[in-house]
Amino acid sequence: MSATTTRPRGRLFFANPGPTNIPDSILKAVAHHSVDFHDADFIALYDECVAGVKRVLQTEQEVLMYTASGHGAWEASLVNLFSPGDRLLIPETGNFSESWARMAEGHGLAVTVLPNEWSRGVDIAALRAALAADTGHTIKGVGIVHNETSTGMVCPIAEVRAALDETGHPALLLTDTISSLGCLDFRMDEWGVDCAVGGSQKGLMLPTGMSFTGVSAKALAAHQSAKLGKHYFNWSVMMNRRHKGFVGTVPTSFFFGLKEALRLLEEEGLAQVFARHHRLGEAVRRCVRHWAGNDGPRLFCGAQGRESDSVTAVLMPEGFDAEAIRRTCMQRFNVSLGGGLARLNGRVFRIGHLGDLNEPMVLGTLAAVEMALAINKVPHGKGGVDAAMEYLAG
Amino acid sequence: MSATTTRPRGRLFFANPGPTNIPDSILKAVAHHSVDFHDADFIALYDECVAGVKRVLQTEQEVLMYTASGHGAWEASLVNLFSPGDRLLIPETGNFSESWARMAEGHGLAVTVLPNEWSRGVDIAALRAALAADTGHTIKGVGIVHNETSTGMVCPIAEVRAALDETGHPALLLTDTISSLGCLDFRMDEWGVDCAVGGSQKGLMLPTGMSFTGVSAKALAAHQSAKLGKHYFNWSVMMNRRHKGFVGTVPTSFFFGLKEALRLLEEEGLAQVFARHHRLGEAVRRCVRHWAGNDGPRLFCGAQGRESDSVTAVLMPEGFDAEAIRRTCMQRFNVSLGGGLARLNGRVFRIGHLGDLNEPMVLGTLAAVEMALAINKVPHGKGGVDAAMEYLAG
Amino acid sequence: MSATTTRPRGRLFFANPGPTNIPDSILKAVAHHSVDFHDADFIALYDECVAGVKRVLQTEQEVLMYTASGHGAWEASLVNLFSPGDRLLIPETGNFSESWARMAEGHGLAVTVLPNEWSRGVDIAALRAALAADTGHTIKGVGIVHNETSTGMVCPIAEVRAALDETGHPALLLTDTISSLGCLDFRMDEWGVDCAVGGSQKGLMLPTGMSFTGVSAKALAAHQSAKLGKHYFNWSVMMNRRHKGFVGTVPTSFFFGLKEALRLLEEEGLAQVFARHHRLGEAVRRCVRHWAGNDGPRLFCGAQGRESDSVTAVLMPEGFDAEAIRRTCMQRFNVSLGGGLARLNGRVFRIGHLGDLNEPMVLGTLAAVEMALAINKVPHGKGGVDAAMEYLAG
Amino acid sequence: MSATTTRPRGRLFFANPGPTNIPDSILKAVAHHSVDFHDADFIALYDECVAGVKRVLQTEQEVLMYTASGHGAWEASLVNLFSPGDRLLIPETGNFSESWARMAEGHGLAVTVLPNEWSRGVDIAALRAALAADTGHTIKGVGIVHNETSTGMVCPIAEVRAALDETGHPALLLTDTISSLGCLDFRMDEWGVDCAVGGSQKGLMLPTGMSFTGVSAKALAAHQSAKLGKHYFNWSVMMNRRHKGFVGTVPTSFFFGLKEALRLLEEEGLAQVFARHHRLGEAVRRCVRHWAGNDGPRLFCGAQGRESDSVTAVLMPEGFDAEAIRRTCMQRFNVSLGGGLARLNGRVFRIGHLGDLNEPMVLGTLAAVEMALAINKVPHGKGGVDAAMEYLAG
Repeated sequence: MSATTTRPRGRLFFANPGPTNIPDSILKAVAHHSVDFHDADFIALYDECVAGVKRVLQTEQEVLMYTASGHGAWEASLVNLFSPGDRLLIPETGNFSESWARMAEGHGLAVTVLPNEWSRGVDIAALRAALAADTGHTIKGVGIVHNETSTGMVCPIAEVRAALDETGHPALLLTDTISSLGCLDFRMDEWGVDCAVGGSQKGLMLPTGMSFTGVSAKALAAHQSAKLGKHYFNWSVMMNRRHKGFVGTVPTSFFFGLKEALRLLEEEGLAQVFARHHRLGEAVRRCVRHWAGNDGPRLFCGAQGRESDSVTAVLMPEGFDAEAIRRTCMQRFNVSLGGGLARLNGRVFRIGHLGDLNEPMVLGTLAAVEMALAINKVPHGKGGVDAAMEYLAG
Repeated sequence: MSATTTRPRGRLFFANPGPTNIPDSILKAVAHHSVDFHDADFIALYDECVAGVKRVLQTEQEVLMYTASGHGAWEASLVNLFSPGDRLLIPETGNFSESWARMAEGHGLAVTVLPNEWSRGVDIAALRAALAADTGHTIKGVGIVHNETSTGMVCPIAEVRAALDETGHPALLLTDTISSLGCLDFRMDEWGVDCAVGGSQKGLMLPTGMSFTGVSAKALAAHQSAKLGKHYFNWSVMMNRRHKGFVGTVPTSFFFGLKEALRLLEEEGLAQVFARHHRLGEAVRRCVRHWAGNDGPRLFCGAQGRESDSVTAVLMPEGFDAEAIRRTCMQRFNVSLGGGLARLNGRVFRIGHLGDLNEPMVLGTLAAVEMALAINKVPHGKGGVDAAMEYLAG
Repeated sequence: MSATTTRPRGRLFFANPGPTNIPDSILKAVAHHSVDFHDADFIALYDECVAGVKRVLQTEQEVLMYTASGHGAWEASLVNLFSPGDRLLIPETGNFSESWARMAEGHGLAVTVLPNEWSRGVDIAALRAALAADTGHTIKGVGIVHNETSTGMVCPIAEVRAALDETGHPALLLTDTISSLGCLDFRMDEWGVDCAVGGSQKGLMLPTGMSFTGVSAKALAAHQSAKLGKHYFNWSVMMNRRHKGFVGTVPTSFFFGLKEALRLLEEEGLAQVFARHHRLGEAVRRCVRHWAGNDGPRLFCGAQGRESDSVTAVLMPEGFDAEAIRRTCMQRFNVSLGGGLARLNGRVFRIGHLGDLNEPMVLGTLAAVEMALAINKVPHGKGGVDAAMEYLAG
Repeated sequence: MSATTTRPRGRLFFANPGPTNIPDSILKAVAHHSVDFHDADFIALYDECVAGVKRVLQTEQEVLMYTASGHGAWEASLVNLFSPGDRLLIPETGNFSESWARMAEGHGLAVTVLPNEWSRGVDIAALRAALAADTGHTIKGVGIVHNETSTGMVCPIAEVRAALDETGHPALLLTDTISSLGCLDFRMDEWGVDCAVGGSQKGLMLPTGMSFTGVSAKALAAHQSAKLGKHYFNWSVMMNRRHKGFVGTVPTSFFFGLKEALRLLEEEGLAQVFARHHRLGEAVRRCVRHWAGNDGPRLFCGAQGRESDSVTAVLMPEGFDAEAIRRTCMQRFNVSLGGGLARLNGRVFRIGHLGDLNEPMVLGTLAAVEMALAINKVPHGKGGVDAAMEYLAG
């Protein structure tokens, strides 16, 4: 019974921007014994889930699913829609626009990255100009990250749609909704999205391992002539199966969880889910703005109105290491923050505020961060948590 | 998908002073399929658990177990040690000393309550005087609540022992350790406790349903001549069974959980467990003292040094309803506080800070309470959470 | 990776007559985080569960609940209804009638056991005679085990009721329904039962730890003048609480499981539940009768029509040890059988067939037993499993 | 409480050949809250799991992992090793050799299928001849299904290796070990396998969703010049990540389960695991051979020594529908069998006997099938279960 550890006790505060907190009821639902995925009971569950995902995507078109993480759904969006050498326009948003571009190149596509400052996000005017300039319509697809998880910034997809419409450009519109779906309003059909990439492990509050694409009629048509090699993610193979999606074994466990996730989302109401994410996201931002003061950690997002309601990236003041904050939070307070990705590594830490979350979870997290700032002697305006509380009690 | 509820999402912050938070690993361990309690594997598990409970009680004497809540173990402590008409001295501490006294009366014992102000706790001098005055040794037992859950106050058992020793009084010493065991230092053998009543649902972080008594050799001897009617809780019946304790079916599920609870406690180390409870309890008190200011909610405990490290009772200012605070916390923030018991109903709310707990859990809870005070326009010093954070970051 | 164990893999076949198999959905429901038992949501759940238990007991009278195993509910039935020295008539049925009698004696009651051969069960005529002979109505209660788990035999409570009625005897009728409730038809109100003792761990498919009594109006009236010492199980204390039942903390976990258990029972329909128990019980009996042949293991029950549909006791031929069969089943086939209790130890093994059970579970169990008979060279008619299969396929 | 359903109760007997039974301890382990996959604790767990998978594959070379079903690992084996137009030799074994061939064609490879009767399996001599004939070494890879799940037949990989060695053919040897790994002896290094495809949901007893490839040094070298488009499954991308494998989010849940799966396998000992699969598989075959009689259902496998120890395909007599047997088993007895795939649909049902399995699970399943044969009036030798029991008790 001698002292053996200072490992923190109590529940892990998982404030990573994904995967995210999984409610107990979903964890239990996922922990389901194996069933035959051809069984009538399972097929009924499956169909119910697909219908629910369509409601969350706000689409009446097709949804195809994959046993894969979000990157697999990305891959599906590329190999099903394009042919070798096709040109794809990807406006720079951060680490995830870069990854998607690299993936496209790995499949032999010609990628044009439209450069943007990460802290400003997509320049819609520049995007419109690029489309207008492409009079020969060599751009076959535009790929946009709706909610850039690495920077905590959102891109107004409706404005992207407008740019395409105004320039009369026929390119397919692909969006990555991985860290927005089920957190922020996303309207696939209204915004004319042709392929919406989503995953299980963020707003749907499931473990990592299932992903999907909403697919428009226009995309399905384009698919017919797409020549990139494919099989595991091949929509044509899928469309011929009873379970559209899933070449190979269907990962049945996820569907028991997905049904519960949809039940939770719809019990609360999607509008309320979005409002809650906004309220909690705004609380985080009020706190960070308070910390910022003159020379404290501040919001990475430099474009008003582009702040994400599901994740906030916090930029450390010059000379201070974001990783030290993360280490203190984890080791001393059992709070797991996201780190800075790619060029932001060490400069940024990220607070995920998505999924199954409430006020004390957010405030406990912010309190841990504020203590970690003090412990690491990072200059900051004290009272950030108070600012968040004042907002949330309002 | 229309809006249907404002029910809070995210994890319940369970800040009741018991039952308490159950770690996931214990919940899963308890969810065990049925096994034969006579099976050799189970008996090995059982013996291992009993040995572990002894280490937590800091005793090398006997531990007998019951399928019952803590009140059942109370009953066991009475029916096994006394005969009809025996006199029991119970120093008043709060709701639970009163309940124990009522239970003793229900079994035909003569109870003498030694009155104390609830906010001051046991007057050790008065207790010593009462014992000294009982020259005929008509008092057969002294029953003391170690940690009075209704008031958030602790009683120094070592001083009680000293009072018995100094007066040469042979009465049996019974203690209720339900909300202290596994949270506060409790030394059954060193303090000469004859019967220590404990339950599963507090510091052992298990569901409600199993309780036990540490039983000294002196108590076992007294048991031989005790004449109160009994069977379900009869130690003699139990001592003749392979599983000492448990007249009837052994509740096997609890033992799978108890093994994990003991593993968690001993992985951390009991000394660290107590230190953590003290640190978190002190954080709560710093916060409440800050709220108190001139006319805010304040610590119910009026005796310095008697503050409990597992639960804090907060006394509302005159004219304000504690229940309103609890309602706001629950309905708006998913934070469950304890209410005031008996005469304290409506005047006090209680913050449990025991079991599987860490800093952000406590700070999230305090933040919710501080917001609820604001929402309900209860005068209070703002910055209570900051005071707690300052202490915890120190 | 060297060979280390011959421990059987795969799922334990738990063919003990209780506790019994717990369906996954109940295990998961029970593994619920702590909630405040005063919370409105919990109270609604509680009330729903009590109403459901009344439907299973087929009563519209009172149900009072205990954090205790079935023996605790037994104790409640005694201490609440009788006064010291009261006379209780307990017809002998087996180990459990004996235990109940011992418990009554431990509480100072005068018990008259009406002797019966265990393999024949209650002699209703003798019972009627004993009641008729008690012209002074000194017998205050008759305590009968509805389904004697140690012998696998059922007692026709309706005939007991008739005996009381025909003799005009006013004694309270107490029944132990622990291993029958939710398995066999039990009609508390129709049969005029005054106190029906039930537990969580058999037909309700829950873990051990919660028990209850159905209490008639006549019993509640009798309770008013009952003088046995009591508190933990005191109905008067309970009736004054919001949650009738439960002196002390309410074991909330059980109610999440109980709701699911009731849902399962009522989804299937009580009549079908009873029919399924009968079908599976009859399959076991056909198998055992086939084993019996001239000199093989045979049904312990010697009274036609008294065979229990929830448990079958199998009597070994002279010179063969029932424990050897149990050991082989457990160690080699991962099948857990019940052993012989009290005087039947070593002579009898018991096959539980209650709760969440289906044909292949029963047949897998019987196959293991038949193999164990062969392995232990116990003479038996081969083809017992075939006989069961033939019946079940019919 | 009226009768509402005849849905079978009790536990589902899941005798599909995959996914397979998941032990409770694995289900619970998988139901883990989210963690940061960059966290040091998780990385230690990850490394431990990869090392364990290597022990099961019996390799000291590389293991790379995917968030994907087994088909994803198939895809990885192709896109990482070959260039457009490369020739792949796939000996026909059944449905899964056909699927793998189709997948290869979908990626632009030239597939030569070496035809075999499904009921005879791979003709090693013909394979050797084909390799010898390929003097120009145009065959870049040989892809063999180790255990063909659709026919219940195994292919001797050591003999395939010998054919390659004897002909001095440099083709890469790819094997699908999905339904053999953790069930049958598989020796990647000893057998000179260059790419071994495995999945989570069979012998590793996990849910569907994670798969992996064992990769030889020779395969890694070949990868350097492989030109098929790829990213999600790209080994080069993976080898540059801390977690080799997993482009994108690591599916952390699986690793908590995988650790427990490895613990179970190694606690039993791999040799014992294989012996248990053989024993249970042989019991199934004895039963089926007994059913066969003159005109009953018989083993599909027509090649002695090629019978699979993890799945048995049963061929119905002419004029009888395998699906009817499956329906009766499922609807009446809660036993889920596998159906016939592709050209075997309706003619074959399959009994999975892999993973977490024991004697009563197998015997309960066989009993259900034997009853279903009787119910559907399919001619068969009665006493199949007896034959299995006799073997298992031997």
